[in-house]
Amino acid sequence: MSPDPSTTSDLVTPALLVDVPTFERNLAAMDAVLPGAKLRPHVKAFKSTDMARRLDADGHHGFCAATPREIEGLVAAGLTDDLLLANETLDTARLGALAGRANITVAIDSDETLDAAIAGGVRSVLVDIDVGLPRCGCDVEDSARLADRARAAGLDVRGVMGYEGHVMMVHDRDKKRAKVEQAMAILLQAHEMVGGDIVSGGGTGTWDLNTWCTEIQAGSYTLMDTQYDELEMPFEKALSVLATVISISSKGWIIADCGLKALGMDHGNPSWDDGDVFFCSDEHITLMPRELSDWKVGDRVQIWPSHVDPTVARHEQFWLVDDDSVRDRWPIDLRHW
Amino acid sequence: MSPDPSTTSDLVTPALLVDVPTFERNLAAMDAVLPGAKLRPHVKAFKSTDMARRLDADGHHGFCAATPREIEGLVAAGLTDDLLLANETLDTARLGALAGRANITVAIDSDETLDAAIAGGVRSVLVDIDVGLPRCGCDVEDSARLADRARAAGLDVRGVMGYEGHVMMVHDRDKKRAKVEQAMAILLQAHEMVGGDIVSGGGTGTWDLNTWCTEIQAGSYTLMDTQYDELEMPFEKALSVLATVISISSKGWIIADCGLKALGMDHGNPSWDDGDVFFCSDEHITLMPRELSDWKVGDRVQIWPSHVDPTVARHEQFWLVDDDSVRDRWPIDLRHW
Repeated sequence: MSPDPSTTSDLVTPALLVDVPTFERNLAAMDAVLPGAKLRPHVKAFKSTDMARRLDADGHHGFCAATPREIEGLVAAGLTDDLLLANETLDTARLGALAGRANITVAIDSDETLDAAIAGGVRSVLVDIDVGLPRCGCDVEDSARLADRARAAGLDVRGVMGYEGHVMMVHDRDKKRAKVEQAMAILLQAHEMVGGDIVSGGGTGTWDLNTWCTEIQAGSYTLMDTQYDELEMPFEKALSVLATVISISSKGWIIADCGLKALGMDHGNPSWDDGDVFFCSDEHITLMPRELSDWKVGDRVQIWPSHVDPTVARHEQFWLVDDDSVRDRWPIDLRHW
Repeated sequence: MSPDPSTTSDLVTPALLVDVPTFERNLAAMDAVLPGAKLRPHVKAFKSTDMARRLDADGHHGFCAATPREIEGLVAAGLTDDLLLANETLDTARLGALAGRANITVAIDSDETLDAAIAGGVRSVLVDIDVGLPRCGCDVEDSARLADRARAAGLDVRGVMGYEGHVMMVHDRDKKRAKVEQAMAILLQAHEMVGGDIVSGGGTGTWDLNTWCTEIQAGSYTLMDTQYDELEMPFEKALSVLATVISISSKGWIIADCGLKALGMDHGNPSWDDGDVFFCSDEHITLMPRELSDWKVGDRVQIWPSHVDPTVARHEQFWLVDDDSVRDRWPIDLRHW
């Protein structure tokens, strides 16, 4: 790699690219509907404080995180206004240690996670409610008791959160709206019992349909992936993996240097505009081009990941590009735990 | 995390554990059949120079790698005896720059990859042969010509390599042996034309059945995974991800803090000894325990990855453990590109 790559041909592959014009359009499309505090960007999707700073500059001063490490990184980067660990943790001392430097709120859904928040020196909580996704969140019936216990311990109970992740990929918008409403009815019921100003939920897949939350927790809209791209949304794929063709077979396939270690594979194979993806190995992708004669060893191919978050977490940096020009390098500095 | 964790309860989760007694048994089982130079351990499986040093101490002084970065890391760690980049690359200047400090051999399968080796200052090559896996490797008919061209350019042509990756997961040993023989017949045919001392191939799935190669390229046997564990082999699962239970649902599931960003998912869900894995999210695993009453928030669970290589590449370190004691920390220092 050139120490300071100016074009994509200078990049060591596989390289994670962000197309700047597309990324900027995605941000503008979101801001037109959810400006400022109506959006609480979820950093788990992009794990970069440089990208968080870019969103902060647009007026989104509060952020969601999925791990204590993400919170620590945001604080170190000076993004301290209003940080929500939208997840349960027992590793609360790391968060309490930052309480004097940043406004940190943590999700709780049990006596144990509340006790950990108190013991760790966390000052603010949201009560996380199970709204239908088989994951974290307490039952509505338990929410008021937890809120009362938290307040009795001197914590600020800011409201409720609930993630309707089970409806993100419903394609029919009318059906999806009905399912979101059903999930949010549970969350609003809990909110009445818990109190506080915040009703937090939603995601890229329900960003404009979830009109019940006071703030939406979306992150993937910034970069997108092939699965979210199936939905009717104004966001476009800005994230790709650049790879180099290293071998061409007489049997009709070509092989590039981007594999399982450069991709999140839980949503299946990535995609390629010039043919089909046959399969991925650790450091290879075997591609079936529509026109084999178009390709030679050394050519670059652009691969579209199927799932943004676990793909990003495999890389050290984003390369921000506009066509073939490399505009910037943003470290993916919020990885690991 | 404690600065110097002494037991697994001190570890931040998710944490990647290597069970030392199991790991040592795997090494002994391999060495009983393939001692010294008969095994060329493939570092792509474990990406750790500490682990490579451990194998070097057992008499395996030659290593395989899948990326230039892995070669650079092995050289920096002083493991310079005989390094094979068992993969095609055009990024050869990085390898040529190390030629004075280490014996580095690179796989080639085309004029372009040979030209790159020459231009980059690489001194030794193996001719990579397509033995049936739809990936890299030239046709047998092209191998002698490439070898002649390489020798004419002053390179040392050390022999051939060919990876029978398409037969690794055949369960019936007789059928598998026949398929390995078929693949290796192609490789031996190329070897007759190419010359040199080395016939390199094989992997953990064919480690004892491939008796045609002069050296076997295996790495996964050290740590194993649930997919390889389906085969009849003397190697046992030494690698697990330790996670913390952060939520318990009234509906019968429990949630731990180990998800898509801590696991390679291309072979599907990981496994759990105490029940079923329902699904994984970015930072969560939803588990259906056989006995819900056995579990409480804060308990630790041990998750078995389904694919070793891409799981390892998601972590910064191995924690070497014996029961609950933490014996050592080995950085996973050969990641990225």
